[in-house]
Order: sequence, then structure tokens, then C-alpha cells
Amino acid sequence: MRPSGRAADALRTVILEPGAARHAEGSCRIRMGLTEVLCTASVEGRVPGFLRGKGEGWVTAEYGMLPRATHKRGEREAARGRQSGRTQEIQRLIGRSLRAVVDRKAMGEMTITLDCDVLTADGGTRCAAITGAWVALHLAFEHCISKRVLARNPITGQVAAVSCGLWDNEPVLDLDYAEDSAAQADANFVLTGAGGIVEVQATAEGTPFSEAQLLGLMALAKKGTAELFAAQREAIGA
Amino acid sequence: MRPSGRAADALRTVILEPGAARHAEGSCRIRMGLTEVLCTASVEGRVPGFLRGKGEGWVTAEYGMLPRATHKRGEREAARGRQSGRTQEIQRLIGRSLRAVVDRKAMGEMTITLDCDVLTADGGTRCAAITGAWVALHLAFEHCISKRVLARNPITGQVAAVSCGLWDNEPVLDLDYAEDSAAQADANFVLTGAGGIVEVQATAEGTPFSEAQLLGLMALAKKGTAELFAAQREAIGA
Amino acid sequence: MRPSGRAADALRTVILEPGAARHAEGSCRIRMGLTEVLCTASVEGRVPGFLRGKGEGWVTAEYGMLPRATHKRGEREAARGRQSGRTQEIQRLIGRSLRAVVDRKAMGEMTITLDCDVLTADGGTRCAAITGAWVALHLAFEHCISKRVLARNPITGQVAAVSCGLWDNEPVLDLDYAEDSAAQADANFVLTGAGGIVEVQATAEGTPFSEAQLLGLMALAKKGTAELFAAQREAIGA
Amino acid sequence: MRPSGRAADALRTVILEPGAARHAEGSCRIRMGLTEVLCTASVEGRVPGFLRGKGEGWVTAEYGMLPRATHKRGEREAARGRQSGRTQEIQRLIGRSLRAVVDRKAMGEMTITLDCDVLTADGGTRCAAITGAWVALHLAFEHCISKRVLARNPITGQVAAVSCGLWDNEPVLDLDYAEDSAAQADANFVLTGAGGIVEVQATAEGTPFSEAQLLGLMALAKKGTAELFAAQREAIGA
Amino acid sequence: MRPSGRAADALRTVILEPGAARHAEGSCRIRMGLTEVLCTASVEGRVPGFLRGKGEGWVTAEYGMLPRATHKRGEREAARGRQSGRTQEIQRLIGRSLRAVVDRKAMGEMTITLDCDVLTADGGTRCAAITGAWVALHLAFEHCISKRVLARNPITGQVAAVSCGLWDNEPVLDLDYAEDSAAQADANFVLTGAGGIVEVQATAEGTPFSEAQLLGLMALAKKGTAELFAAQREAIGA
Amino acid sequence: MRPSGRAADALRTVILEPGAARHAEGSCRIRMGLTEVLCTASVEGRVPGFLRGKGEGWVTAEYGMLPRATHKRGEREAARGRQSGRTQEIQRLIGRSLRAVVDRKAMGEMTITLDCDVLTADGGTRCAAITGAWVALHLAFEHCISKRVLARNPITGQVAAVSCGLWDNEPVLDLDYAEDSAAQADANFVLTGAGGIVEVQATAEGTPFSEAQLLGLMALAKKGTAELFAAQREAIGA
Repeated sequence: MRPSGRAADALRTVILEPGAARHAEGSCRIRMGLTEVLCTASVEGRVPGFLRGKGEGWVTAEYGMLPRATHKRGEREAARGRQSGRTQEIQRLIGRSLRAVVDRKAMGEMTITLDCDVLTADGGTRCAAITGAWVALHLAFEHCISKRVLARNPITGQVAAVSCGLWDNEPVLDLDYAEDSAAQADANFVLTGAGGIVEVQATAEGTPFSEAQLLGLMALAKKGTAELFAAQREAIGA
Repeated sequence: MRPSGRAADALRTVILEPGAARHAEGSCRIRMGLTEVLCTASVEGRVPGFLRGKGEGWVTAEYGMLPRATHKRGEREAARGRQSGRTQEIQRLIGRSLRAVVDRKAMGEMTITLDCDVLTADGGTRCAAITGAWVALHLAFEHCISKRVLARNPITGQVAAVSCGLWDNEPVLDLDYAEDSAAQADANFVLTGAGGIVEVQATAEGTPFSEAQLLGLMALAKKGTAELFAAQREAIGA
Repeated sequence: MRPSGRAADALRTVILEPGAARHAEGSCRIRMGLTEVLCTASVEGRVPGFLRGKGEGWVTAEYGMLPRATHKRGEREAARGRQSGRTQEIQRLIGRSLRAVVDRKAMGEMTITLDCDVLTADGGTRCAAITGAWVALHLAFEHCISKRVLARNPITGQVAAVSCGLWDNEPVLDLDYAEDSAAQADANFVLTGAGGIVEVQATAEGTPFSEAQLLGLMALAKKGTAELFAAQREAIGA
Repeated sequence: MRPSGRAADALRTVILEPGAARHAEGSCRIRMGLTEVLCTASVEGRVPGFLRGKGEGWVTAEYGMLPRATHKRGEREAARGRQSGRTQEIQRLIGRSLRAVVDRKAMGEMTITLDCDVLTADGGTRCAAITGAWVALHLAFEHCISKRVLARNPITGQVAAVSCGLWDNEPVLDLDYAEDSAAQADANFVLTGAGGIVEVQATAEGTPFSEAQLLGLMALAKKGTAELFAAQREAIGA
Repeated sequence: MRPSGRAADALRTVILEPGAARHAEGSCRIRMGLTEVLCTASVEGRVPGFLRGKGEGWVTAEYGMLPRATHKRGEREAARGRQSGRTQEIQRLIGRSLRAVVDRKAMGEMTITLDCDVLTADGGTRCAAITGAWVALHLAFEHCISKRVLARNPITGQVAAVSCGLWDNEPVLDLDYAEDSAAQADANFVLTGAGGIVEVQATAEGTPFSEAQLLGLMALAKKGTAELFAAQREAIGA
Repeated sequence: MRPSGRAADALRTVILEPGAARHAEGSCRIRMGLTEVLCTASVEGRVPGFLRGKGEGWVTAEYGMLPRATHKRGEREAARGRQSGRTQEIQRLIGRSLRAVVDRKAMGEMTITLDCDVLTADGGTRCAAITGAWVALHLAFEHCISKRVLARNPITGQVAAVSCGLWDNEPVLDLDYAEDSAAQADANFVLTGAGGIVEVQATAEGTPFSEAQLLGLMALAKKGTAELFAAQREAIGA
């Protein structure tokens, strides 16, 4: 039995709250169990230097964690004067994942920045951030359509993410913090609504794992993201 | 008539939500109108170097704002690599204000850090942070008592803060963002439950103001903080 | 009796030395007792980005302290790699105070930077900086007139600052370092020659103070700044 | 046909040069085609704070690239004042990969730092770094044995890494820079000599890929690392 | 004729003002023509880590320039967040030069930090800093003797510095800013009272110079420092 | 007898390997005994702001050392977040030295950056960097000629550098690390092929030295650089 007592293939309760941030063009608060991430999408009418004049848009992400989102207070990155390697790794992942389902030529020269800030951390924050950010991004594009800045939504499909891990040699879905700390392996899957793989990051914490186990983790991830895609569609009213 | 349409001496709706952060020893989410600040109090069993061996505790604060708490996205301070002068000024003010109502000798050698993170900004965030942080601090001390780390609560009284300003030459209470941007003067008052002044910061934005006007602002602040003290007492169940 | 032995309403000896810096467009060395601050005004023919094209000028300030201006050597901020929160708070205050008496539209698109560097610190350095910087700024504008860059001086009035404090529950004027360290409350007043208030910053160091005490401090500040205004007028030959 | 003209399952020429750095306790220069990375292992008789007193050792890595290792000169990270997110991500990966095959309790309280510096970059630098660092680490432990600091080598197995990608929808092994820039997907596999998976990082650059394609990439990775394991054994004289 | 109109072997007017800084254990304000540097020596009863427990002292220096010490305002290094290469180069030179005439074993475990802050710059600031810092250091050691911290002065001799340059192919002594900007070569000599060379830094600005010219510059430096040594002795009352 | 056993006037074995870096427009690996520095010259078609529009080029240098180039691992400057004073001093010296033999007007508006990275350090790294960088720079200009970007090579002569020191009061040429650590004085000479002096930096480590000794060091430097000039000519095929 896994620590949370959930079935091996059970997600935690997922709640998506679209429009949770008053000022942002698009936003979504996502809860997966106790984990809670506020995702906002901010639209700006210009692109970074490397894209200027190319007629394409840009989608990027920043990630942060409130100092006391965690069991023990973490140092505030703004006070320390730099973002950790972990933070940078996560925000690069979020940006890549969302760009995989956006037609950037259809955006024109605009940038959308997704801020994913963890209010409460209980495992799986980067996956929750991707799933919630997709909703925020979708809503921001809809906002642009309503303002007649865009004629159609440049999103080409859904993207969502979930973590899986090996517990007592068996694959389990959607690790919480206690499970994540003790798992033999930890894998994050970013998958599309059409069944494609955008990113796999699988890491053995101690003993290396086998290809069969990797496939077992992926099977759970497909089941988990199917539920997340449904929740996303409901959140955007599709 | 002031922009918000409120009476000159009317606070915005104040909601204090104690225990809003799952992991912190004490916490309080405060809303004043649209402004929303999450205040957490984290207890650590040691003091900064300058206090070591003196048998006293320390209370300090950090302040942050989510990038899209504001109408226009602000740069993330962690990404820029340093906290702005404004941020540092505010977190110093919050720390000073709370230390004014704590018997630091009664704490023993422990540090409590108050993290005040603005989730939505609509004016008055530093004042809301002080008012909410007092509740979080009180609860953290109660937590220490329940854990038998402290025998009694070292808080010596209540402290709360409110902003006032001059609108059309008349004093008005509790400025929202639109009012703050257009006010002739802007003053923050940090007052105690016993009627004392902890801090006054009054600034003319354009034309200097008079002593009579300063007194008018202070009268409103007294009225406003009286309501905030009541809300604090209710929040801690006193 | 206060530690310095001065009467409660007595300023320290004030000496303003206009033109103390050879290269600056305007400058003034100010001494208030042992406290000594060198204020220079540097003129530059452009404005920060947020003002470009608006036809207005900008007045800003930077503040520093020589490492051994103090009793005990302080760390050099350039070596540490960042300015302290205190430094930033002070330089923001100096800039705001001077902008309160400048018609920025009359400046045209130019920036004047006031560098206030403390050569010897004995309390009241930020107030001395404001009082001296006003002289430096006035002289820099006169320099611009002499160079036919400006037709008239954009300064609209005088501004000066003084600190007051509570000693043995009584208000006293112009605290030196020893007094400042032991005062029950500490207040900085930035006032104009026309009797207006530009900024009040009053802080209880221990016990909160009363409104009556705040008024007592302000009465002393008015008396003190009256003497400072006279010294400023003498310094600029008015 | 892939750009390099190699067969889909062909590695580039691999050359491992053990002992390439004169001063380091262990070192290895690795070339995979034009890519050239110098890996050094430095032994220090203490551990980071979080491990002190636990009787375990630590293995960590740093990664860098000479500014002109690349076709176009890159900014020097030391001059810019911070390591990029990419650099931090890579050095975290190298450290994790090597720790997966080290019995840290058998090390005692010592730290080994692997510096992997890219002298020439032509794709696959992080994988080359892992493969070469394993040799450097092995030699450093042997050095400790020769100095009677350790009784036996704490390495529990081999680890090596290789990149694979999708070219024209077909999996190809060991991408060079030109191939990497144009591949549809890019995957790094860190595998052990015993056939286990330590880490998989697979990313779709444009179109998402399928599970079958992921398995195709993994099959190539197994073939490629088998050759790398042989080269490692030869390099250490096993 | 050189720009300043001085004879080729003429120093500018030198004024040493010992005790110029109220709080420092030793201090000296030095003026060489318009150049003005405030040198303070601060005593601290401990040494940097690399000397701990060795029974030796340390002498180090920091150098700074007020932003408007120069004709055109320079950026404040504290605001920019780092010291320039030039600043670091100069403060390393000052420290080395003074350590050359100190018996560090005779100091015991104490550190003296020489802060050399340029109030007005008109060429030759690093040389003036060395010459003035020697006086400050001497006085600080005398202070330690008066406090019975030291039994005798650990200074083993005098050290002073002067710049020379080539003007119209002829060596000239003690360049001011205008001369320095236009000289063909620029050399700083740090010499001891006993006639030894501590440091020579000679740089061709355009055309390389000859050994004969280097000797001509050195001859001037000997003459110039002889006068500086006399001024130093007078300043310390020797 | 000096520690290395070499004759007082003997250079270490010098090996220049032009074209050692695959991607750079010009490059040279230089070995002087064990010291090994990789010098690359990177051409960029624009100049820094202070030269824009003046029709001149710029030559600048950056210097680095691999963390384990040394006997004991040094901290990685990119990880620490800033370059040391020593690094900045050296890269400024390299840039100045090369600019002394370049007709910058003949370059047009282009920048060449010389990256000098120490792969193995055994004394004399800054001198080796200058000598090797000259070759890299020459080749980069030849590259520009071959690409018809330049019509002729803007280099006006050769420049090379060597260190000398006092050992047992006698001048010796080309110090290795062990000699450098124990020498009484240490001098770096940057000389031109035409016999001119570009830079002299001579420092007494303990006892000051005499003018006669300085001349003795210089005589060795002339002999040593004559050999280096021959090696440079051979390297560029002149």
C-alpha cells in the first residue's frame, strides 16, 4: 500500500479554478490534493530580441514558490539574489511544454508569460503548473480574440503533465510529497491531448529501473493525463 | 466624492482568514477590498548573529508581490536578482511594527519570520500586511505555547496599519489603487490597540500639506484601525 | 538634560559650504555638529526611459557613507555588491523631498543627480543630506542658467529636513548619534520654506508615542528648519 | 540519410584519454567526434553542511563551456556573473548520474567534485561529460586507495550517457550539432553497465512523438552505451 | 612645455593632513594639487581565515571614488553592484605596497584596513592613496601603542608613490589628469625610504618606450618620492 | 641553483600550436613547460558603445582558468558569480598589450575578443596568454583578409611577454609555479619585436629590490622574448 492510501492509478482530487487572478489576461488556480499553484498568463505586445521581425510570437514561463509553501520555510529567492538551478529547470520545462501546443506564427509578435507560483507544495508542483498554465494560456488567447487582437486561438491542442513513481517496485500515479521523498524512481510525463509525448523526465533515486518499469509509469501517466484533459476542457467551458 | 464612492471614513471590506497556510506555524490571509495578502509566520529555534547569547528573540519580515498581482505584470524580483528599494523599505517597516508589540526577552532565542506575499494588489498592501501579520504572529506564538516551547504569549498588544490620503483637499480613509495614484498626499499609520503611535509615514505627492491636514488623516487612521483591531481579535478568537 | 547638553530646541552648529566640490555643476558641504555630508548635483542632458519624450526633467539622489565615517568601520557597499535597504530608503527619501520643490516641466528633458556622501556620521545624516542637496541643486540650476540651458530656475521653494526625538518623554531637536541611539522615538521632518509638510517619518523605538508628542516634535522641527532655511538662503547668496 | 552520413545506429569515434589533467586526482578527456570535454575529479576531505557527521561522502559536478567552444562565441558565464539555467540543469544531471553508481557510505566524509569543461562543442556535450566523468571519478577513487585513504573503490558499476533523436521520423544515435538542431526529438539516456536506467530526458522539439518512437530511441541508446562501457573499461585498464 | 606649466621634475603642491577623520584609529587627508584622497586606517582584532592561528597580522586596502570626484559623474559602484577591474587593481596595489614595509609578525593577529576614498580626482589618485595611507597606518599603529595593544610600531620603513610619464618624449613628474590623458607613457613607482623598489607599473599608451626612457622616469620618481618622504615625516611629527 | 634546475637565462620549452580551436577565426594553444593556455580570437562586426561611429576597431581580452588547472581546485568564477580582481587585472593587461601593436583605424568597426583559458597552470600564465594571443589575433586578421573583410593585416608588430624574478638575489628567466611562489621579486615584461617596452610590472614580494636588479631582470626578458618572437613567427608561417 502506498503511503497516501490511494489506489496505484488514482490521481489526487483535481480542482481547476479559471480566472482566479483578477488582473491577468488569463489565469487558473490548480489544486492537486494539497498542492496549489496559481498560474497567470500575461500578454505583452512585443517579442524578445532573438525573434524580433520574424512575425512569430513567444511563450515563456517563470516559476516560484512562496517561502512557506513548504513544510520548512525555504529561503526567498529574491532575497538570496538568484533563482536556484531547480527553479530554472522547472520554468524552462513549463515554457517548452506549452510551446509544443502553440502555433507561434499564428500569435504574431506578442509574448505571453506564464507565472506559476506555488502557494502550497505537496509534491508534483511542476506538473500541476503545466496543467494549470495551459488553461491560463488558453484563456489569455481567448481574451486576445475578444479584444480583436487575434482572430483565432493559436493553441493547437491540449497539454498536461503528471508525475509517477515506483513504490515498492510498483508504478504509482501522482506522487504527493511523502511519496516523492521515498520513491525509488520519479518520472514526469508531459503528454498531449492527441496522445503524443512532449517530454519525459525519469530519474532513478537509488536503484536504476528497467524499461518495463518505465512503460508501466507511462501507462499510468496516460490514464492520469486523460483525467486532467477532461478537467481542463471543463475549466475552459469546452 | 472620492473615486471609490466610499464615505471618507469608510474602510473597504476586511476579511481575515486565520490558518490560511497549511504548513506555517501561524498564518492569516487578509483581504481589504481587492487587495489580498498571505501572511505566514515561521518559527526557527535560533537568532541572527548580532543577538546570539543575549537571551532575546527576533521578529523579522519579508515582503513580496506575485508578478501579476498588479494591473501590469511586474518583473519577478528573483529573476532580476535583487529586491527593489520599495520592497526592502516595506519589509523593514513590517518588521519594526511587529517588534513594537513583542516582548523579545519573553521569546527566548527564537526567530519568527513573517512572509507577506501579495496575491492581488489594489492599494494599501503594506498596511494590510502589517494587520494580517499580527494575526499570523499571534497564532505562531500560540502554536509555541501548545508545543510547550513558550509558557506565555510574548505579544504585548495589538498593532494594525491603515493608509489615508488627501482627496480634493479632504482626508479619506483606506485608499485603493486608483485613489492612491491620484491622491495629493499619502500617509501610512501604524497604531497600537492601546492608542499609541508606532510609525507615521506621510508624504506629499505634489503640493505640501498642512499640520491640520495631518491631524485629519490621523483621526481617520484611529477610526480605521479600531475596526481592524476588532477584526484581529475576532480572527484569533479573543 | 539631554546627552549633548544642548537646550531641547537647539540645533547643532550648522555650516553650509557651497561650491565645495570642484567638478560638480552645483555642490554644498553641510556640517551639523560633527555630521558632515558632501552633496553634489550633476546635470545630464537626458531623462530616464519612463520620462522620455514627455518634456519633463528628473531629479534623483544617491546616498553613500564612507566606510569609516562611523565609529566602527562599516562594510563598503561597493565591495559587498549591493546597497543596503537603509541606503535605498534614504536615497529615495532625498529624491522625493527635492522633487517636491521643483517644477519638472520647467527643467525640460534633463536629469539632475544629487550624490550625498557622508564623510563623518554623527546622527541626522539623511536630514543633513536633504538640506545640503537643496543648495547643490539650486546652484546647479543657476549654472544651467549661466550656460543658457535654462531661462529661469525651476525651483519653486526651499526644502530642508531635521530630526527630532523623545528624550525622557520630552521632545528634543536635532539628535546626535548618542541621542539617536537612546531616544524613545525618532522622527524626520521634511518641510518647505512656505510652511508645508513634504514628509513625516516618525518611529517609536520602544514604547509607542502619543499624538501630543508627535505635535511637540513637529513644533521643534518648524523652529529648526526655520534656521536651516536662513542658512540655505545665505549659502546661495539670496 | 542523416546529415552526418553515419548509419542510424553508429556512434561517432570515441576517444577517452585518462589522466589528461596533470594536477587532478582523476581525469579523463573525452572526444566524441569533434565534441571534446575535459573531466577532472577533485578530492576534498570534507562534505557539505547537510551531510556533516553522517559518515557519508558526496559526489557533485560543475559544467562549463569555453566561450569559443561553439561556432559563435558565447558570453563567458564568469563575466556575466551567473551560470545559465542550461548550465545548472546539466551539472545537476551529471552529479545525479554519477551518484547513482557510488556507494556513498563507503566513501566516508569526502567530497569529489567533477569539473566537466567543454573545449569544443559539437552536440552531445552533457552525455560526453557523464561518460568521461565516470572514468575521472574511478581514477580518483583509485588514487585514494593508493594513498590509503580508502580501502576499496566505492563505485558500484558503470554509468554512461548518449543522446538519440528522431530524424525524418526514424531514430538515430549520437546526434552531432547539425543533427541536434534539426531533429524532431532529442533524448538523453543515462544507463548503467548492468542494463538499468538512471535517467531519461526526452523532448519533442516540434511534433510530439509516440511511445514506439521512444522505445526505438532507447534501443539505440542501449547499443551506444554498450560501446561506451567498453571504452570506459579500456580507459581504466579493467 | 608640459600642459601644467610645471618644471619636468616638479611635484604639485603636497599637503598631508593627519587625523582628518574623526573616528578612525589613524587617518590622513592628502592633496596633490587638486587631487584629494581621504585615507583612514581601521584596526580590528582578528585576521582573515587564511592567517588564523599563525600569529601574524594583515594589512589590506579598499579604494573608492565619490561619483562626482571626476569631471564627468561616474556610476556609483555600490549602485552598479560591483567594483570595476580598475578599482580592484588599485586596492590590491595599495595593500601590497604597505605590506612591503610592515613586519606582520610584530602586529600579532590584527587586521588594519586602509580605506582610500577619492574626494577630488585630478590624476595620480592611486599614488596619493599609497602616500597618504602610509601616514594613516603609522598613526593607527601609534594608537595601538598608546592603548597598550602593541609594544612597538611594526612599520619597518617609509613607502610612497608617484606617477611619471613621457610628454613630448621627455620624462615629467607627477602627472595631473590633463597630462595623464595625453601622455605617451604612464608609470607608477612605489619606492621605499631606504631607496628600494616595491613596485613599478609602466605602460605605453601608444608607442612603446625604451629602457633609457624607463630609467629617466625612475630618476624623476626618486626625486619626487624624496619630497613625499619628507612630507610624511613631518605629518607624523618625526 | 634555481628550483627548476634551468640556467638562469633559460626559457622552458615553448610550443605554439596555431589553429588549435576548431571554431575560432584565429587560435593558438601555447605551452611553456607545463603551463598550457588556449587562446582564441573571435571576430564580431561591431564595436562597443564608446567607439561607435568612430571608424575604429577594438581588441579586448578575457581570461579564465579551469577550476582544476591548479594543484588545488579553485572555485569556478561562474559559480561564485564574479571574476576575481586578479582575473580582471590580467585580462585588462592582455587587452592593453595587444592593442599596442594594432592599428585600430585599419580594422574598421570590428571587435576581436581574445579568450585566454588556462588548461594547466604552472606559473607565467598571463605572459603565455599574451604571447599566444598575438598568434591567435594575427590568424584572425588573416582570416578576415581571406574573407575579403580586410585588405591588409592591421597588426603593426609582434608583442610577447615573459616573467622574470629574483632567486637568491640573482635574476632568473621564466619562473615556474614553485619558483614564483618563493621568488623575492616577480616581474612581467611585455615587449615588442622592435625592442620597445609596452608594459613592465615588477613587484617585490618581500625585500624591495634595486634599480640594478630591475635592469638585470629586463635583460633576461629581452633574451627570453627574442626566442618567443621567433616561435611566434614560425607559428604564423612568417
